[in-house]
Amino acid sequence: MTAKIAILGASGYTGAELVRIIASHPHMEVAALAADRKAGMEMRDVFPHLATLDLPRLVKIDQIDFSAIDMCFCALPHVTSQQVIPSLPEGLKVVDLSADFRLRDPGAYEKWYGQPHQAVELQKEAVYGLTEFYRDEIRNARFVAGTGCNAATGLFSLVPLFSKGLIAPEGVILDMKVGVSGAGRALKENLLHAELSEGWMPYAAGGKHRHLGEFDQEFSKAAGREIRVQFTPTLIPANRGILSAAYVQGDAAAIHAALSDTYQGEPFVHVLSFGQVPSTRSVRGSNMVQLGVAAERDQGRATVFAALDNLTKGSSGQAVQNANLMLGFDETEGLMMAPLFP
Amino acid sequence: MTAKIAILGASGYTGAELVRIIASHPHMEVAALAADRKAGMEMRDVFPHLATLDLPRLVKIDQIDFSAIDMCFCALPHVTSQQVIPSLPEGLKVVDLSADFRLRDPGAYEKWYGQPHQAVELQKEAVYGLTEFYRDEIRNARFVAGTGCNAATGLFSLVPLFSKGLIAPEGVILDMKVGVSGAGRALKENLLHAELSEGWMPYAAGGKHRHLGEFDQEFSKAAGREIRVQFTPTLIPANRGILSAAYVQGDAAAIHAALSDTYQGEPFVHVLSFGQVPSTRSVRGSNMVQLGVAAERDQGRATVFAALDNLTKGSSGQAVQNANLMLGFDETEGLMMAPLFP
Amino acid sequence: MTAKIAILGASGYTGAELVRIIASHPHMEVAALAADRKAGMEMRDVFPHLATLDLPRLVKIDQIDFSAIDMCFCALPHVTSQQVIPSLPEGLKVVDLSADFRLRDPGAYEKWYGQPHQAVELQKEAVYGLTEFYRDEIRNARFVAGTGCNAATGLFSLVPLFSKGLIAPEGVILDMKVGVSGAGRALKENLLHAELSEGWMPYAAGGKHRHLGEFDQEFSKAAGREIRVQFTPTLIPANRGILSAAYVQGDAAAIHAALSDTYQGEPFVHVLSFGQVPSTRSVRGSNMVQLGVAAERDQGRATVFAALDNLTKGSSGQAVQNANLMLGFDETEGLMMAPLFP
Amino acid sequence: MTAKIAILGASGYTGAELVRIIASHPHMEVAALAADRKAGMEMRDVFPHLATLDLPRLVKIDQIDFSAIDMCFCALPHVTSQQVIPSLPEGLKVVDLSADFRLRDPGAYEKWYGQPHQAVELQKEAVYGLTEFYRDEIRNARFVAGTGCNAATGLFSLVPLFSKGLIAPEGVILDMKVGVSGAGRALKENLLHAELSEGWMPYAAGGKHRHLGEFDQEFSKAAGREIRVQFTPTLIPANRGILSAAYVQGDAAAIHAALSDTYQGEPFVHVLSFGQVPSTRSVRGSNMVQLGVAAERDQGRATVFAALDNLTKGSSGQAVQNANLMLGFDETEGLMMAPLFP
Repeated sequence: MTAKIAILGASGYTGAELVRIIASHPHMEVAALAADRKAGMEMRDVFPHLATLDLPRLVKIDQIDFSAIDMCFCALPHVTSQQVIPSLPEGLKVVDLSADFRLRDPGAYEKWYGQPHQAVELQKEAVYGLTEFYRDEIRNARFVAGTGCNAATGLFSLVPLFSKGLIAPEGVILDMKVGVSGAGRALKENLLHAELSEGWMPYAAGGKHRHLGEFDQEFSKAAGREIRVQFTPTLIPANRGILSAAYVQGDAAAIHAALSDTYQGEPFVHVLSFGQVPSTRSVRGSNMVQLGVAAERDQGRATVFAALDNLTKGSSGQAVQNANLMLGFDETEGLMMAPLFP
Repeated sequence: MTAKIAILGASGYTGAELVRIIASHPHMEVAALAADRKAGMEMRDVFPHLATLDLPRLVKIDQIDFSAIDMCFCALPHVTSQQVIPSLPEGLKVVDLSADFRLRDPGAYEKWYGQPHQAVELQKEAVYGLTEFYRDEIRNARFVAGTGCNAATGLFSLVPLFSKGLIAPEGVILDMKVGVSGAGRALKENLLHAELSEGWMPYAAGGKHRHLGEFDQEFSKAAGREIRVQFTPTLIPANRGILSAAYVQGDAAAIHAALSDTYQGEPFVHVLSFGQVPSTRSVRGSNMVQLGVAAERDQGRATVFAALDNLTKGSSGQAVQNANLMLGFDETEGLMMAPLFP
Repeated sequence: MTAKIAILGASGYTGAELVRIIASHPHMEVAALAADRKAGMEMRDVFPHLATLDLPRLVKIDQIDFSAIDMCFCALPHVTSQQVIPSLPEGLKVVDLSADFRLRDPGAYEKWYGQPHQAVELQKEAVYGLTEFYRDEIRNARFVAGTGCNAATGLFSLVPLFSKGLIAPEGVILDMKVGVSGAGRALKENLLHAELSEGWMPYAAGGKHRHLGEFDQEFSKAAGREIRVQFTPTLIPANRGILSAAYVQGDAAAIHAALSDTYQGEPFVHVLSFGQVPSTRSVRGSNMVQLGVAAERDQGRATVFAALDNLTKGSSGQAVQNANLMLGFDETEGLMMAPLFP
Repeated sequence: MTAKIAILGASGYTGAELVRIIASHPHMEVAALAADRKAGMEMRDVFPHLATLDLPRLVKIDQIDFSAIDMCFCALPHVTSQQVIPSLPEGLKVVDLSADFRLRDPGAYEKWYGQPHQAVELQKEAVYGLTEFYRDEIRNARFVAGTGCNAATGLFSLVPLFSKGLIAPEGVILDMKVGVSGAGRALKENLLHAELSEGWMPYAAGGKHRHLGEFDQEFSKAAGREIRVQFTPTLIPANRGILSAAYVQGDAAAIHAALSDTYQGEPFVHVLSFGQVPSTRSVRGSNMVQLGVAAERDQGRATVFAALDNLTKGSSGQAVQNANLMLGFDETEGLMMAPLFP
């Protein structure tokens, strides 16, 4: 069987990444591509690197015949997703890559995103797309809400540790170094090459980053009590990748053992030997997460490092992984490409 | 059938790129990896990005049981190839990625490489690995010598034009902007990040680059007369890619038509619309070549642009393409991955 | 004496570079900064790297009291310059950094810029700002039009050769590799880090770049006959610098001798030893030009390489150099800072 | 008065940066340059960007006539400094840029550097070169030991806070993102452009970085009790700059007030408005430090950010600042150059 795929919001980086992955997927085929402002254009004019693929022309969403679609990826901007997804045919399988349906609590949504949620009922149906922890729900889901890319990076590092009570619930600090593609193809001054190259700086400092909403939700759920971590991202002069350091109080060896145990057999999560540290260059373009644990010199303190590609495991690769489950395919189908280095 | 693959010189960038490609190849399997100085190490310690692949340990060449090998890729340094390949079992299929067997004329070899060739007899057997122009010979070959990465870029641009007499034989200038991975993993000062980032400069200026030997050989063959072009590469602060501008005298429209015609149906060579220019970001990590033609304002002058990924189409992807032919596989098997962008 | 300086268009990169240079200039002081859309802002909010300088607040042009200004730098966008400069007080010394007053022939202006010139009379007064060749006119000028950054790079390479008849007038090709800051702080997709890093491509290919107007004008004047060169720039993933290769027919040794002779004693033009090639990293942040000459293997062909920093010698440094002359200061005042490397 | 300067170890990046700074210093003149392995070479062959400066030829240290030298900068590798400096003429003013004389306690030195100190007596004389905190001692010193570049970044952030007891003594975490020039011009695989570009990773994780010795010493001294912080650096694909996040427990507003107060009037330390964050691009090539403070969402937690240029304020600029004091010059002489951006 080949599943017919629609991608809404195909003119952004996560849209292009979905196309890249699906192009090598043995059981998926791009059947429709939508991008409102670029409707009518050929994909090769929006993304010249996709010029040699045989792809449908970009259309408006309402021009898609969804009866012929098996899976719909929504790579639309935040808020737009809330407006579009409720209008899609009932029963259509959907993986949303936006932030709109990640937070279960409408109050939390409003707090982090500054406005009331417009599709509260639909939100109740959404399964959180962190595959390794919601595999069964996802397999049976009609609608999955993909995680934030930073959120995924932190969750892989710490969910098993909060679950097992291996780290102190307070004082956890997540410091992430993130490549620029996570900010999308937006025309913003700080994303210009001349501004970013040789210039790195924190953003959303002081607990302002919206992915904190996901951390609060998932860490609290894992720990069975309210957890509030600190999170500071730094924008790095590079395109793909997130490198995270999670500073925790806990026994480093026990932490390493717990992560190794949790992810044993996981095809996309690789725990390095104790003391080894991950690098973004080891995951670029792949669906892999690398985790490493180092003991700090003060007993009872450890650092958990994680690296993943924000566009792949952090977004579009994760989406395909979830879609594989929802469509009854092997979870790894189309996702075992090796990283690109150098 | 799954072909058992040996890679000699697996600790360099072209070796790693072979492993990356073969990891997704449906009919190839890495059976042996050799790297003299790193024999005994695991590949994951040499290339952490390959850590999640199931790969054999690095060994010395003489530890490989070649009777179980269907195809041997030699990614050894120049000169070493000459010494190693003659000692391999007779009949073993070999694709060499070094410069050692590209030049048919031992005199030309000595001129460009500064020393007499040590395996002149074997050289006679080597088929030049520019697949699109030597497809039949390669299909029947036991031993193929891969092209230089810059050479390939220039040859795709100009061989059809010299063949058809569409450009003046004199005054052709090739100006290439090349990423740093083409220089390999060597520890040289000019390859350091601190030297190269924000610092670009020509090298081998004044007709000194060794790939001129390949240009002389192949362009002269195509034109049926001696051709000597100029070639100046510039090292660019980037990792992967070659962008070439070939300045020629000829009719731009006729040139574009001839290239379009020549490469019609070629799976890996894409001729852009007249006036469009290629970019390295459109080919990164893929086996594609992009060609573009622009008319200059003075009638009778045109520029032919080309872009490819030096590690893929310029080297390891080309090698797998040739190996596919030599092993009776579909030529595109394992090579249709889309480019990685951004 | 300290000259009071006004900078119009202070919110762009050339404006910021003027401020950087003037900050260390012993005889200049920034007295007024104008930027229409950002009027009212502090410079530190537009350019945080200038936060520790004591600078006036940004204002609108008509808020400046020009009676207190000794020199006005116009770093405004093209076309805007034509509208603003005629309205400045008569007699005010002005150095324009835009393209508006570089071309003496209104017809050439219209051809390259696509619209009639709006200040033809003022254009007649403008002295072309290539200091090393117009020093005397500049010293006595009220109004100087700075050169294009690519134009400067090519002119330093070839003007002496055309003047002395050392190169064939036809078939000259200029291939330039340019950093992204030359495109300014504009919000364009191709200037985003994610697009440019690892992605380089030609632009304005096929004789479309506007600096060709300057080449035509200055080369023809130098040669005493009409000269039309080819020029292709490639946008490089780096911030500052232009590296140019000029492919010419002529005797390389004679060319090197002529350049060495011409620039002997010039404080900002450094001719490398014969065969050596320049690098952008040797000029970054400085007002220096580096020139190198290589003989090609075919007798009678040579390549002239040049490197300069587009924001300094190619624009704002050149402007200060000219202003020094116009104000009666030593030409090198404030401009002898060494390059920043790495 | 013009001070005659000798630079030992002039072939490294800190040596080149000293030359760059001194080239614009009104009261210093490079009188001697030593580099053992490159003795006999011209500086322009070691650092082409310095080609246009009038510099002495590189010699061996024992070829220098120190009787004509007013100030000697030692930019030698660690350990070598210990061997060379004791042999210099008594009374010669020396600023050492190596790690050899930073730690007052020989036991601490042995612990962090893995071998006994070879010049324990001389160590006693060394003044720690953090100018803003040791200004009086430095003014009267004969021998100053420059700080580590990461050390300086962390010390500027936290010394006033430990001094005033504004932060909890335990659990302080320093997470730094550092450019590659801090690793010097060494030929190491991880410093290659192809490895580092698009590949960032932590190093010396788990409390192994030697600058922890400086943190322990200086923070403990400031706090009046033993302080042991955590410190994790991440190598970033960029050349110049350190960006530090210090995660502390304390009142953010009080912290901001204390830093503002401490550095009021300091020419090289700029405290941003509360909530603003620094960027490396605001300090590149300058002697400035930028500090910023953000309140975390959990009361009682704050983050102190700092940015400086590792080669300037973190090393060679700091060295000149100290030398200015030792020679009786104005502390800011030659150091007020504005940052280079973009």
